[in-house]
Amino acid sequence: MSSLFLRTLREDPADAEVPSHKLLVRAGYVRRVAPGIYTWLPLGLRVLRNIEQVVREEMDAIGSQEIQFPALLPKEPYEATGRWTEYGPNIFRLKDRRGGDYLLGPTHEELFTLVVKGEYSSYKDYPVMLYQVQTKYRDEARPRAGILRGREFLMKDSYSFDLSDEGLAESYRLHRDAYVRIFDRLGLEYVVVEATSGAMGGSASEEFLAVAPTGEDTYVRSPGGYAANVEAVTTPAPPARSIEGLPAAQAHHTPDTPTIETLVDFLNEKADLGRTFTAADTLKNVLIKTRHPGADEWTLLAIGVPGDREVDMKRLEAALDPAEVALLDEADFAANPFLVKGYIGPAALAANGVRYLVDPRIVPGTAWVTGADKPDHHVVDLVCGRDFTPDGTIEAAEVREGDPAPDGSGPLETARGIEIGHVFQLGRKYSDAAQLDALGADGKPVRITMGSYGIGVSRLVGAIAEQSHDGSGLIWPRAVAPADVHIVIAGKSDEIVAGGERLAADLHAAGVRVLLDDRKATPGVKFADAELIGVPTIVVVGRGLANGVVEVKDRRSGERQEIAVESAVAHLAEVAGAR
Amino acid sequence: MSSLFLRTLREDPADAEVPSHKLLVRAGYVRRVAPGIYTWLPLGLRVLRNIEQVVREEMDAIGSQEIQFPALLPKEPYEATGRWTEYGPNIFRLKDRRGGDYLLGPTHEELFTLVVKGEYSSYKDYPVMLYQVQTKYRDEARPRAGILRGREFLMKDSYSFDLSDEGLAESYRLHRDAYVRIFDRLGLEYVVVEATSGAMGGSASEEFLAVAPTGEDTYVRSPGGYAANVEAVTTPAPPARSIEGLPAAQAHHTPDTPTIETLVDFLNEKADLGRTFTAADTLKNVLIKTRHPGADEWTLLAIGVPGDREVDMKRLEAALDPAEVALLDEADFAANPFLVKGYIGPAALAANGVRYLVDPRIVPGTAWVTGADKPDHHVVDLVCGRDFTPDGTIEAAEVREGDPAPDGSGPLETARGIEIGHVFQLGRKYSDAAQLDALGADGKPVRITMGSYGIGVSRLVGAIAEQSHDGSGLIWPRAVAPADVHIVIAGKSDEIVAGGERLAADLHAAGVRVLLDDRKATPGVKFADAELIGVPTIVVVGRGLANGVVEVKDRRSGERQEIAVESAVAHLAEVAGAR
Repeated sequence: MSSLFLRTLREDPADAEVPSHKLLVRAGYVRRVAPGIYTWLPLGLRVLRNIEQVVREEMDAIGSQEIQFPALLPKEPYEATGRWTEYGPNIFRLKDRRGGDYLLGPTHEELFTLVVKGEYSSYKDYPVMLYQVQTKYRDEARPRAGILRGREFLMKDSYSFDLSDEGLAESYRLHRDAYVRIFDRLGLEYVVVEATSGAMGGSASEEFLAVAPTGEDTYVRSPGGYAANVEAVTTPAPPARSIEGLPAAQAHHTPDTPTIETLVDFLNEKADLGRTFTAADTLKNVLIKTRHPGADEWTLLAIGVPGDREVDMKRLEAALDPAEVALLDEADFAANPFLVKGYIGPAALAANGVRYLVDPRIVPGTAWVTGADKPDHHVVDLVCGRDFTPDGTIEAAEVREGDPAPDGSGPLETARGIEIGHVFQLGRKYSDAAQLDALGADGKPVRITMGSYGIGVSRLVGAIAEQSHDGSGLIWPRAVAPADVHIVIAGKSDEIVAGGERLAADLHAAGVRVLLDDRKATPGVKFADAELIGVPTIVVVGRGLANGVVEVKDRRSGERQEIAVESAVAHLAEVAGAR
Repeated sequence: MSSLFLRTLREDPADAEVPSHKLLVRAGYVRRVAPGIYTWLPLGLRVLRNIEQVVREEMDAIGSQEIQFPALLPKEPYEATGRWTEYGPNIFRLKDRRGGDYLLGPTHEELFTLVVKGEYSSYKDYPVMLYQVQTKYRDEARPRAGILRGREFLMKDSYSFDLSDEGLAESYRLHRDAYVRIFDRLGLEYVVVEATSGAMGGSASEEFLAVAPTGEDTYVRSPGGYAANVEAVTTPAPPARSIEGLPAAQAHHTPDTPTIETLVDFLNEKADLGRTFTAADTLKNVLIKTRHPGADEWTLLAIGVPGDREVDMKRLEAALDPAEVALLDEADFAANPFLVKGYIGPAALAANGVRYLVDPRIVPGTAWVTGADKPDHHVVDLVCGRDFTPDGTIEAAEVREGDPAPDGSGPLETARGIEIGHVFQLGRKYSDAAQLDALGADGKPVRITMGSYGIGVSRLVGAIAEQSHDGSGLIWPRAVAPADVHIVIAGKSDEIVAGGERLAADLHAAGVRVLLDDRKATPGVKFADAELIGVPTIVVVGRGLANGVVEVKDRRSGERQEIAVESAVAHLAEVAGAR
């Protein structure tokens, strides 16, 4: 450490909010260059490489083959799949000296598809799994939390190419199992949740989330083991009911009821209705507009949800992806006078051809209080399937704690996590775009089906730090730690200095990775830095040496024990060997 | 190989000119994505990683510490040093979603300087050496030769930071020695040549060139061991002579002498001069214009060289770097009527304030035939130091075979090579720009002096291939080969297939890296692919197996020997162990 390129900081960096960001900067693992763009200093680079190595070993073990694409990519393949447009401002774009359009790859589906198409032709060539560990780029609107959401980051991305859906299911299983082994080896606490596949298209999709209260992703779980990304939660639809004998819909003058709450109060005070209403009896119609990537025109869309729930914009956007979603502005209302703000009902939507998607709870035979398309008027007992017919359902209503899990496994509770991995069955989106076929045994072309599997390698450094620290600093799991043993020379005497150096040399010779604090600093400064840096085993070579002992401290548990110098190497090699 | 992601090609790629490019594509090591931008397929990535590992080991061995900067960099540090402008169209520039200016790092001097400034403050912190292995970007005007001159490429760049010039000299020596070890380990034939430092600034500078007739760099060497980049060759100046007694300068009417050749012929036919002239007696004045990076205005500059030599534009540009250089156009001559095309002489230059730099051979006391600034007129016996005084000297004349080496070690001959490494003493250019000081023992600031050391890691794959191939394919030095042994199963019988697989498994268990050709192809196809791929040792498991032998072939020498199956593992492990 007297020559290591490392200076620890006493103060948290001003721009840091989450513990991992604060500690990785304070302990000298990373340094910020620009928003979301970081330099890896020696200790940080070691942790990053250790993680990369675990990922690589498990990918190789399932027979995936490593290749490496460029990060600087020409526009054409991304234009062929429509993503050049879809990505909007989320990718970095540039022109070369001849005016050619390029992007910095945010993900490489197109390139993987094309490289396989370039090399393979026969069904005998398949299946194949390829991966790369690559620097990727996304121009995040809000880079945050240090390396957890950066604009330049390291990812492992894999793709599988199969002849059949069964083959894809097997490739998917291989990757999912490999991910479990990887995250287990890295010592992470994580959950596997059902996920939507976003702009990627595709079917089966699961995310690996590192459990962390500071995580950006909200997920839900049930006591029976259901777990899903909030965007992926499906709402169990109640059975349709008979409409026979239901009272007729009736419009009412409902002055001063601009909100669900005032409407419910008004109805409950209205004696002639003779019933009690709750917000759940009302049907709230939210107007938005959507625009497909590359399109100029916006299209109106109405979303109907029970009045006791808000529309969750993230769920709504996920449901409509890759379309762009926006709220209406005054000009939109002015251009569509049939939209009576606060009193929009299904009737005017149908009469004016506005597509109307509703929450799955709104099934035929359910009766609702909703807008009557006239200021200060609502209609009561408007029955779905009798008085209005939605164009379909949409998962846009908020998910709440206590909602039933869709698989019947009990009430949901919410928790937060950091997305560290994603496995999903892409299907044929990219092979269709590239016309990736294999010539089958019967001489006919077989369209290839693909899986996509990603791990955020640099983000894992942050996720592990987020889970594994205390008030004094970082606590690395041994598999990723920058060293196995951190030796503190606590004393200035020649004997103590020589003793520490000798122990370091002996450990190094025994294959143990050592960080030796041979600085001319006080023991207090050295102890504090050792705690901050977070190597799993700390050895203090100090006054005890005169009695033939050194102190061995476990960074995580804080347990200390005195070990005889002569058995220290054997003891520490065994501890480190647990790696 | 039945599952390896590899398809060899029989035809050379249409865009390939040099052998390494052709073979690396044909043997399935790389694939082109865009001009100068390549994908590494499994075998290529292995060779690249092997080289990277050798480089990393030797850097670690001299105590250099590995870090990693981002490739996407903000403009500001490059603006502070002027390089944002200097690089012109040679770098990739882009804007992020907020309009901020970024570049893709072509080299990281600024970042290294700033990171050291950020961490270190005291003289006790120094010296320090840092390096990274990083993907770099240059928007080459003419990307060529596959990965030899790409636009995205992998480099190892190191920097040293010292308190004194002596310290810098020592850091430079350490790196130079490490580079010798690296290139030796990689099995390269290379020369170390004196170099100019280009846009980098600085003093001592040497290039490592892999000897290759297809190389882009021309260098010269002498029998006595002198070697230099052509741009770096200095011209020995003859001693100044006395001007006493030299004939007076005289203008002559020299009609129809627009070239040096016609001028010399005319003079030699002119009886009244009574001497014989050669082109070396004439002084050719070439007018150019230069513009400093970021400047709008061009400035005229005259270059004087002996008439028997051309101006070498690369030497001229290197001498004037980082200024931009251009030839005059008609508009320039029109704007400067004192420039009489074909008859420009020192007199008009001096009278009109045009800076005049001459070849070092033009020393005081030498007499020249040159332009008289009047159409169809030349002046004879114009003596340097008497009739004209240049503003300085410049290395712009062509270097020719047979020219004397500047160190007196004999006549020069020219050869070609591929630049694979560059070491140079940057000095204080970047530490001045960043005000990188250490607080000295005496409490006074000490300006840090830097060295810069680069290796083209991905280019080395091409350079090695360029040196190491034959008509059948690649021939990898063992240290970088994608495998140690390439086993060809030459036969379809169960016994032969099982024998090949068993040998592969046994070798793998013995730590030998094996490529096993277990494809259902003919032996002829397999042999041809084995030669093309270039693993150093080829083992054929075929009919000989019935007699208990396999054939072991050395790819480079072509030597074959039969080895008993039972001793094959031990034999091959020994061969591979030479690694």
